[in-house]
Amino acid sequence: MDQQYKYLLDEKDLPRQWYNINPDMPVSPGPVLHPVTKEPVSPEFLMKLFPEEFVKQAVSMERYIDIPEPIREIYKLWRPTPLYRARRLEKALDTPAHIYYKYEGTSPVGSHKLNTAVAQAYYGKLEGLKGFTTETGAGQWGTALSFSCGLFDLECIVYMVKVSYEQKPYRRSVMQTYGGDVTPSPSTTTKSGRAALERDPNTTGSLGMAISEAVEVAVESGGEYKYSLGSVLGPVLMHQTVIGLEALKQFEMAGEYPDIAIGCVGGGSNFSGFAFPFLYNNFTAGKSTRLIAVEPTACPTLTRGLYAFDYGDTAKMAPIVKMHTLGHNFVPPGIHAGGLRYHGMAPHLCALYDHGDIEAVALHQLDTFKSAVLFAQSEGIIAAPESSHAICAAVNEALACKEEGTEKVIAFNLSGHGHLDLAAYDAYLGDELRNYEYPDELIKESLKSLPEVKL
Amino acid sequence: MDQQYKYLLDEKDLPRQWYNINPDMPVSPGPVLHPVTKEPVSPEFLMKLFPEEFVKQAVSMERYIDIPEPIREIYKLWRPTPLYRARRLEKALDTPAHIYYKYEGTSPVGSHKLNTAVAQAYYGKLEGLKGFTTETGAGQWGTALSFSCGLFDLECIVYMVKVSYEQKPYRRSVMQTYGGDVTPSPSTTTKSGRAALERDPNTTGSLGMAISEAVEVAVESGGEYKYSLGSVLGPVLMHQTVIGLEALKQFEMAGEYPDIAIGCVGGGSNFSGFAFPFLYNNFTAGKSTRLIAVEPTACPTLTRGLYAFDYGDTAKMAPIVKMHTLGHNFVPPGIHAGGLRYHGMAPHLCALYDHGDIEAVALHQLDTFKSAVLFAQSEGIIAAPESSHAICAAVNEALACKEEGTEKVIAFNLSGHGHLDLAAYDAYLGDELRNYEYPDELIKESLKSLPEVKL
Repeated sequence: MDQQYKYLLDEKDLPRQWYNINPDMPVSPGPVLHPVTKEPVSPEFLMKLFPEEFVKQAVSMERYIDIPEPIREIYKLWRPTPLYRARRLEKALDTPAHIYYKYEGTSPVGSHKLNTAVAQAYYGKLEGLKGFTTETGAGQWGTALSFSCGLFDLECIVYMVKVSYEQKPYRRSVMQTYGGDVTPSPSTTTKSGRAALERDPNTTGSLGMAISEAVEVAVESGGEYKYSLGSVLGPVLMHQTVIGLEALKQFEMAGEYPDIAIGCVGGGSNFSGFAFPFLYNNFTAGKSTRLIAVEPTACPTLTRGLYAFDYGDTAKMAPIVKMHTLGHNFVPPGIHAGGLRYHGMAPHLCALYDHGDIEAVALHQLDTFKSAVLFAQSEGIIAAPESSHAICAAVNEALACKEEGTEKVIAFNLSGHGHLDLAAYDAYLGDELRNYEYPDELIKESLKSLPEVKL
Repeated sequence: MDQQYKYLLDEKDLPRQWYNINPDMPVSPGPVLHPVTKEPVSPEFLMKLFPEEFVKQAVSMERYIDIPEPIREIYKLWRPTPLYRARRLEKALDTPAHIYYKYEGTSPVGSHKLNTAVAQAYYGKLEGLKGFTTETGAGQWGTALSFSCGLFDLECIVYMVKVSYEQKPYRRSVMQTYGGDVTPSPSTTTKSGRAALERDPNTTGSLGMAISEAVEVAVESGGEYKYSLGSVLGPVLMHQTVIGLEALKQFEMAGEYPDIAIGCVGGGSNFSGFAFPFLYNNFTAGKSTRLIAVEPTACPTLTRGLYAFDYGDTAKMAPIVKMHTLGHNFVPPGIHAGGLRYHGMAPHLCALYDHGDIEAVALHQLDTFKSAVLFAQSEGIIAAPESSHAICAAVNEALACKEEGTEKVIAFNLSGHGHLDLAAYDAYLGDELRNYEYPDELIKESLKSLPEVKL
């Protein structure tokens, strides 16, 4: 009999609703506080910055929220994404485990980021915005938002950290090809940018500075532009649940159900989007899938951070939320999984982790690349360094199955391809990478910067 | 009713046979001549260079040749590939035409090249080879063969033109990630390489030199290694027919049939693989699909070349075949569609073009990039510069339909993605590219180098 490698869904099986975890949260993810007053912010305050529908979703207690048809029509450019059985990887590992991966790299922009970018652009268009502002570091998020804005005839103003702008011209080219307006940050186009340049004319920029510029342009536009964020917030996690909802149907086709579901975490959106539908079944359908969030040892937010209130950004301009944090001043080293270098984590995910509903593990950079190369040689796909963390965790679990002689079903989310990350593979193959592990004192020191919050 | 964007086939619909056009050729593609004696070569001669099964396929008159199961099992890593209806492109062009594209960029190596690389590696493994040698310019072919050899535990020795090796380190990284052994050419590992370095120690290399090195290593290995070629030859075109055979089934799903089928041509393999199954229906089933091969004006082999016997390579080491040629000394300018910079063309394709069974058109570089950017903004996919020639021809036909008010069905083969070609997009957006058009005298001069052949 023919062995099956891919489980594909028809376009008619594309989910018609996102799964909103709000009503099912066993514990509260905590309030959102104003960065200056440190008081809970109102939805009206957030609506100045984000589209109204986006803010409504953030506070909605409806379990399922309809995906508007214009968004579904765009999703159809690449969704439903395939679920693969990694038969050649299983063979290479000689494991009795069944390994599956959901591949979000088939998105035209190369990652899961497009799932929420399309939704945010649509909601912005609905309320007559002229465009969105955003920041981008490595460029994945700016790429997704540039393409999405273009589809709705919206401008996309991207502030790109200057050092990335100069060192990663191809990421900039992709955004510009999609019609994005990319400015190296800090720039002379904003007050905060000019101030940063005055302090240090030779600064190479930072994500904090880029956020400040993007937020400033949105706030000062008198409502013409709003600001868009690619992870962390509840609605972003919700938009990503199309991943897990599709996967549930695909596992039905495969006649299996995952014992373990794995995803990498930076801000937490791809993991949440993949895992939350399985978590719902854990809560309500008697399932007990282990959900494992994978982070780098170089930025061990969940595994070594403190669960406390902290600023969302280094510049203390973003709201304060309750999350596992390494401190907003924490500067992770320049590991190649740039998307996982965030000092905090999505508040929903942190609440679930603190409550014991999900697990977390931190992995070393060299191990993740070793797994990624094995994966490329067996399955063909060159994975993004971020996604390689998920691969590595899956490999470790599969090897544990081999050790124990158990035939577990292991699923992971392959959040994106690494076609624009080949410098990372080059450095790994050239033996130029190292691992990072911190002494407790360093993290303790960084955590001294937490704001004092009275609730 | 929901509009459909993608037509997907199950793995069970993956073709079980390739279509071999040999028995249906209305005219002979001509004999293969020895580059020195200029006499027709025997299959035995070719078997010293290529796998036996490959050579047998070259002379086979069976219309359908079984795809061995181990090859089909590997094809399933990414095949069947999707057929897309380009609804957003149609809307952007405001055309009544229905535009479809078959997307080969979903292959893990990013292009159609893998369809034949897997087959050649399998046949090499069958006869106990230790590995393959090959040359690569831009790197697409070397990537496909590196991955394929790895799957069969074969060594893959790639001679990469030195200037590409140095300027495109990421292509090298991909090959190395897949386990390929990549050497900049000319090298000191071969006699021909050392001779080239003696003539000019600072040479940046050429495809001709790289071919010489790869062939030398194969020939001198006493049968341990054979040489692999990624286009031009009959069996290569045949391995690519999985593309067109799948497309036929997908058009049945769509309830349409192409009036026009388009592909770009360098050596001719992706166009042939897409077009030949439609051509068979033209020959036998009363269909009359126009088949259009698209080449760059910078290398106008079919549209301006002579149909004559010429060497396959600049170094006069490859066999002499009958083809449309610009002369083996013709050096096209460094356009970004590197895969289309070949002075000749697959003999089968040339015979069919000469006989009037297919059409050809040459397009300017700037027009192809303009279409590629429109395509990226509407369909999302960043196409390879080579494939952008097919996009541009499809756009031109769709605009003609708009002019005439006709609702034609236009299909093209999108042979690969451009994620590793972003320097090209960057140059286009930065207004750094130009068009190329040659005076007749230049081509006449180049054609003086043709060998004298008496048959």
